[in-house]
Amino acid sequence: MQTIQQLQADLAAGRVTSVSLVEQSLAAIEAHRKGGGSAFVHVDPEGALRAAQASDAARRAGFVPSPIAGLPVSIKDLFDVRGQVTTAGSKALAGAQPAAQDAEAVARLRAAGAILIGRTNMSEFAFSGLGLNPHYGTPRAPFDAARVAGGSTSGGAVSVAQGMAVATLGTDTGGSIRIPSAFCNLTGFKPTAHRVSLKGGVPLSRTLDSAGPLARSVSCCAILDGILSGEPLDARPAVLKGLRLYVTRDFVFNDVDPAVAAAFDAALSRLSAAGASIVPFDFPELHELPVINGGGGFTAAEAWHWHRELLRTKGDVYDQRVAMRIRRGEQQSAADYLQLIDARARMMAVAADRLRDADAWLMPTVAVRPPRVDDLQQDDAFFSTNALVLRNTSVINFLDGCAVSLPAGEPGIGLAVCGLHDADARILQVSGAIEPVLA
Amino acid sequence: MQTIQQLQADLAAGRVTSVSLVEQSLAAIEAHRKGGGSAFVHVDPEGALRAAQASDAARRAGFVPSPIAGLPVSIKDLFDVRGQVTTAGSKALAGAQPAAQDAEAVARLRAAGAILIGRTNMSEFAFSGLGLNPHYGTPRAPFDAARVAGGSTSGGAVSVAQGMAVATLGTDTGGSIRIPSAFCNLTGFKPTAHRVSLKGGVPLSRTLDSAGPLARSVSCCAILDGILSGEPLDARPAVLKGLRLYVTRDFVFNDVDPAVAAAFDAALSRLSAAGASIVPFDFPELHELPVINGGGGFTAAEAWHWHRELLRTKGDVYDQRVAMRIRRGEQQSAADYLQLIDARARMMAVAADRLRDADAWLMPTVAVRPPRVDDLQQDDAFFSTNALVLRNTSVINFLDGCAVSLPAGEPGIGLAVCGLHDADARILQVSGAIEPVLA
Repeated sequence: MQTIQQLQADLAAGRVTSVSLVEQSLAAIEAHRKGGGSAFVHVDPEGALRAAQASDAARRAGFVPSPIAGLPVSIKDLFDVRGQVTTAGSKALAGAQPAAQDAEAVARLRAAGAILIGRTNMSEFAFSGLGLNPHYGTPRAPFDAARVAGGSTSGGAVSVAQGMAVATLGTDTGGSIRIPSAFCNLTGFKPTAHRVSLKGGVPLSRTLDSAGPLARSVSCCAILDGILSGEPLDARPAVLKGLRLYVTRDFVFNDVDPAVAAAFDAALSRLSAAGASIVPFDFPELHELPVINGGGGFTAAEAWHWHRELLRTKGDVYDQRVAMRIRRGEQQSAADYLQLIDARARMMAVAADRLRDADAWLMPTVAVRPPRVDDLQQDDAFFSTNALVLRNTSVINFLDGCAVSLPAGEPGIGLAVCGLHDADARILQVSGAIEPVLA
Repeated sequence: MQTIQQLQADLAAGRVTSVSLVEQSLAAIEAHRKGGGSAFVHVDPEGALRAAQASDAARRAGFVPSPIAGLPVSIKDLFDVRGQVTTAGSKALAGAQPAAQDAEAVARLRAAGAILIGRTNMSEFAFSGLGLNPHYGTPRAPFDAARVAGGSTSGGAVSVAQGMAVATLGTDTGGSIRIPSAFCNLTGFKPTAHRVSLKGGVPLSRTLDSAGPLARSVSCCAILDGILSGEPLDARPAVLKGLRLYVTRDFVFNDVDPAVAAAFDAALSRLSAAGASIVPFDFPELHELPVINGGGGFTAAEAWHWHRELLRTKGDVYDQRVAMRIRRGEQQSAADYLQLIDARARMMAVAADRLRDADAWLMPTVAVRPPRVDDLQQDDAFFSTNALVLRNTSVINFLDGCAVSLPAGEPGIGLAVCGLHDADARILQVSGAIEPVLA
């Protein structure tokens, strides 16, 4: 599919209708499913077509509520959609009651005229960066079906990459928007956590969770973010010349795949040639993160709080790799948790100091290329690869920051444009300046 | 001492000087000390007199930075004052380094021209509502030396009640401003927690702690609050006629002393006769609070986090009644703590609903009169009395609200004018309307 702007122009000119776009989506979903694809866990063709007909009628009457009006958008299966069961990629919730109302973010999309095309597959309870799902299948990278699509917003990324939706609503606790964006050559935006309501979604970590779009461009992401947050930002591209783009080799370059390092360095060269300043900086405190989060961090503590009853009654139907990581939270004391809060505040202060003059902080979104599914069968390989895949992105969640992942120019490799708390507008502006250089 | 306004008028008219007021304070402190009183743990006569001389000189030159310029103010011993050791009423901190700088609230008082007359005694680490202190002595109620002054801001309350300071800077985690205000016939204001910085103070509960004044009138409190917060509020008295003053008998009237109930009902009669509407309401959910806080609540968890190292090295010199309650926090898990946060949010939502149309919520500040020191020698009596004394006030900390305690007309009995989150201006306005009716 094209960008939101292109499709809106086509709709406005009568070259396409919402019904024709939805039919095209549904056909792509059907073809994907027949080919063994697992991007969706639920599709509602009748509902989507009815909504598309209403959208076309409204447009003819002169009512176009937003730039995504009439466009098919997919929804990660952890957000409530009224009348449907939210499973969060788990069998433990499969018998739950249908949702009485939309999650807030879903309600905003619906009010903006988006056509809710279906619910997408994900890592169970959003607790993995790889996207493996033993219950509903593992979505694959669009450019190589032997490799994972990345998680946890795995199905959502595939739905956009393979023309089943214009954009998808994802969540990101440690990289779940940005990792699949990188692995599927998309643009994903993880806003500062408080921007988009998570009400009506299944939480993973109340501290680290955030919601945002995966789409085809920075401006697609900015449009979605404005609708999801209710606070549209000035996301016009910055002037690239003279931008101070900070790069540290500390921590985020440990164990980096040479192909990823090469793609990243090539991107820096192009940015530098286009007039941006690449500013090396030190951030040695990042090496403390594995110790700070050694007990499982906010995610284990907060997931255990949410899951403990469900694990007691239905723990046997969980992906045991997920259950095992949630159960680490049982060992955390209230004092450990308070210590985490303090460590986070200290790290945020250090970051603010070190990045005071930066327009953005660039890093490889993920240190490695999308792993091959066959290489993740052993638990050891799964846990160590999962930790490495999540490592760079989760820095930004820990710092309560924001980031865009852009396609870096090689399949499955992303370049992350990162900012600190509430730097969302600047990060979109800087990403918009970088995007054409990497294209 | 008189109110801030009266003293400022006297200073402006030249009827008194800051030096004469400070000499008067120092004389009162000396007489108190000679009489066996324990309100202060540290007094700095030379420093205070030097500051008073400077204040008088500045005033002659036309510089009067605030309404408290030149007036003696005492400081609870848990706030840092540069160059002095902060003990928080404990022997465990007695060997600490002098503070390198003032706590933020102290710095604001100093910049406003207050004369810092000395540091006042308190319950060790602010962890009791009675004010017993086995290390530095137990301040007594001004009207009956057999009874406690209340805590934890025990010495601060006595310093104001007995003319040693115009006002005192206290803290309130579960009632530590309001209880000694009630027991010492003062007016105390516990603002919404975020209003006044606690930086540079020894914390008890980072969630529940708040800082504010104990003084002679509502407008004294409003002046101090404006200086401490940097955000002066419109505290002009409301029009009493037609005010909706909500009263519930749920929870806060359990085990109430008949003398307290009689004083409270007499106050309501006078308010009603003066034109206010007394509106009975139900709040049965308050009865859940003892269960919600059964594990020690935020205070035990957060105090344990702060104290665990100090308890390990110096636990033997703690008041063992304090140490025992802090150690309850060791048993709390991260999930228990998260459950507390959720329970608080639910209770706040219920309160907002039940009090939607209220101008204020009135209750007896404390359910009983100041206990006799001799009645608190047994641990059982201490723990049960302490819990009962803190019960009503701590409701407001749990709700993240604000409250003024006014003298209710009988020695040692206070009437609390309570509001929810950020209702500070309204609570000061309503308290200002009630104050003359009770006087």
